[in-house]
Amino acid sequence: MKKHLLFTLLFVVLLGITSNAQEALFRAQNIISPEIHPDNSVTFRIHAPNATAVQVTGDFLPSEKMETPMGQMDGPGKASLTKGENGVWEFKSQTLKSEMYGYSFVVDGLSTIDPNNPFLIRDVASVTNIFIIGGGHADLFKTNDIPHGSVTRRWYDSPGLGMDRRITIYTPPGYENSTEKLPVLYLLHGAGGDEEAWIALGRTAQIMDNLIAEGKAKPMIVVMPNGNVIQDGAPGEGSKNFYKPQFMIPKTMDGTYEGAFSDIIKFVESNYRVKADKANRAIAGLSMGGYHTLHISRYYPNTFDYMGLFSAAIMPREDATGKVYSNFDETLKAQMDNGYKLYWIAIGKTDFLYNANKEYLAKLDAMKMTYTYVESEGGHIWRNWRVYLSQFAPQLFN
Amino acid sequence: MKKHLLFTLLFVVLLGITSNAQEALFRAQNIISPEIHPDNSVTFRIHAPNATAVQVTGDFLPSEKMETPMGQMDGPGKASLTKGENGVWEFKSQTLKSEMYGYSFVVDGLSTIDPNNPFLIRDVASVTNIFIIGGGHADLFKTNDIPHGSVTRRWYDSPGLGMDRRITIYTPPGYENSTEKLPVLYLLHGAGGDEEAWIALGRTAQIMDNLIAEGKAKPMIVVMPNGNVIQDGAPGEGSKNFYKPQFMIPKTMDGTYEGAFSDIIKFVESNYRVKADKANRAIAGLSMGGYHTLHISRYYPNTFDYMGLFSAAIMPREDATGKVYSNFDETLKAQMDNGYKLYWIAIGKTDFLYNANKEYLAKLDAMKMTYTYVESEGGHIWRNWRVYLSQFAPQLFN
Repeated sequence: MKKHLLFTLLFVVLLGITSNAQEALFRAQNIISPEIHPDNSVTFRIHAPNATAVQVTGDFLPSEKMETPMGQMDGPGKASLTKGENGVWEFKSQTLKSEMYGYSFVVDGLSTIDPNNPFLIRDVASVTNIFIIGGGHADLFKTNDIPHGSVTRRWYDSPGLGMDRRITIYTPPGYENSTEKLPVLYLLHGAGGDEEAWIALGRTAQIMDNLIAEGKAKPMIVVMPNGNVIQDGAPGEGSKNFYKPQFMIPKTMDGTYEGAFSDIIKFVESNYRVKADKANRAIAGLSMGGYHTLHISRYYPNTFDYMGLFSAAIMPREDATGKVYSNFDETLKAQMDNGYKLYWIAIGKTDFLYNANKEYLAKLDAMKMTYTYVESEGGHIWRNWRVYLSQFAPQLFN
Repeated sequence: MKKHLLFTLLFVVLLGITSNAQEALFRAQNIISPEIHPDNSVTFRIHAPNATAVQVTGDFLPSEKMETPMGQMDGPGKASLTKGENGVWEFKSQTLKSEMYGYSFVVDGLSTIDPNNPFLIRDVASVTNIFIIGGGHADLFKTNDIPHGSVTRRWYDSPGLGMDRRITIYTPPGYENSTEKLPVLYLLHGAGGDEEAWIALGRTAQIMDNLIAEGKAKPMIVVMPNGNVIQDGAPGEGSKNFYKPQFMIPKTMDGTYEGAFSDIIKFVESNYRVKADKANRAIAGLSMGGYHTLHISRYYPNTFDYMGLFSAAIMPREDATGKVYSNFDETLKAQMDNGYKLYWIAIGKTDFLYNANKEYLAKLDAMKMTYTYVESEGGHIWRNWRVYLSQFAPQLFN
């Protein structure tokens, strides 16, 4: 036993100089944070003995107004932690509703992650800690003890963009050991996102596994491409390797992506066991991906039976004049005349794209194009897009 | 143009309250860090106007002695940043050799990540920023513009452990569109690691893609299982969802894993297009994974032609008495008598397992069991394991 203990200690101590684990060990950073209590209140802790003020900021707190060059806007809520005798600061939240939340600490004005929570997601260039409160709709975002699909990162040839490009593919449980052909959902990210966004921020694999296990969604393949045509892969995953990700990326909304989307369909339909017909193709996207969905679904005639516009960036664009955007009204009418099963539009009441979406609905009304409209609380946030996916997927391929 | 700019600004501002991006934007956090200069020196920057002392710590700096309960040990090096007028602290390193480096900041005693570098890796419960200096062997760790393999996270049934378990599979470029059967490398992580470790910390996909593109390694499938038998998946990826990862996990070195390893081989050989014979099976692992490699390769007689023990945790263990560990000497001799192509042992000169490995070599010498021994600089660190993989893989399946 003594030898075993020595072995353990040595192992921990010498874990390697690339890690700060051994330092953390001897600084008594053996802290649990966040600690989710049985009543779904949450305690946040950080060891910062030299700090004079520590706050936690995140979307589990009521949002606060913040001053910006654009005027007053909603910002994340903030709460102050209290310092204990041991140099550990603490804050205990109210009882929280079921949700996936993000947060970070602010220590003497410096924004920092929680050093005791290694679960992080990147949104454009920002990294945020996450936690999940179960017992409600956020159980869909958890990995449960049910059959799991596979998630593959692979590369496809895009002749239209002149490069090999990285793509994320979800195949449902049992796909590998079946001969059944499956339908496909093409799921598109927003500006600043990439082929990692729907998996990391959107919890797509967990949502699909759970919906399928509950019999609420049909088994389907979910294809998550990269909509930034100047990238071959996500920041850190493509041939540009590590660089600071940007929100606005050239050529993302000028028709180039929509024009080359056939490369993705062709790749999927020649590499996966799919039903390659309109009745078994769906396309959906958030924000910029909703804009891409709108245009791809009318530009490729009679290709998709299901469209999902999640907080779609439907904006008049003066530079939207190329081949893809010409004949907008005619191709939209052709899409209507060809028929489809579902044209689903969802937006939050406080989304800055709310009026643009309402104008688009008026346009559809005027041409008598049918759609389903869902209005949710909240704004232009991932919290809504996870829910939209969990509402949209069950309506597909029935 | 004006409308477009407004759109852009609105979009950025309203990115969502789950993100702190909009706050960062208006706090002038538009900083590049790390900035790699043409001469491979690196400038680190952080905006911390209220701080009184900021350091950077990482393995790109000469290591420093640190006091621990075990005595003086090597710890990561530290350097002080200098405060500029704008509240941005800076440090410029020496010219650095080609390597993948890890670092973090220490702001008034608080360890924090670089808020301008979203590229992070988790090692057990610690999260560290990374960057790569190219122009040498670390070019193998970069995503280059060459054909890429696929990386899949999927789940296999383990009757021996009574659960479905998550596993990571690398298939080489072209695997999906070929009929050729391929050899398999089983690649095992160390204590505190999981099925994510070799991909994230080990850069396995990049190393294999690059070696294969250069004609230095044969196309092969690389199987990266989870060696913690009480887990069904990595922390954050299994059915326990988010919890603080631990270094020492029960039942990791008691024979349970080795005893159930046949489930993994069976899964791979019935789900992938592989050459299912000894000549086309290799097994290797780091630290605890080296211990697992040693035991699996002799416990399953005549199964593997290639063994790689990377800084293997070869330790006398009083609790190593179960079925797997009985008849150690007899089964090792049987392994020798059955023959194999390569028994490769690598360790760093300052590794705390150096003497244990030398004792094992002496044991092998005494029984006239052949092996290849490689002694490197450095200790028990990922820097060595990435290099060991890049040295081991080219020797396989020739």
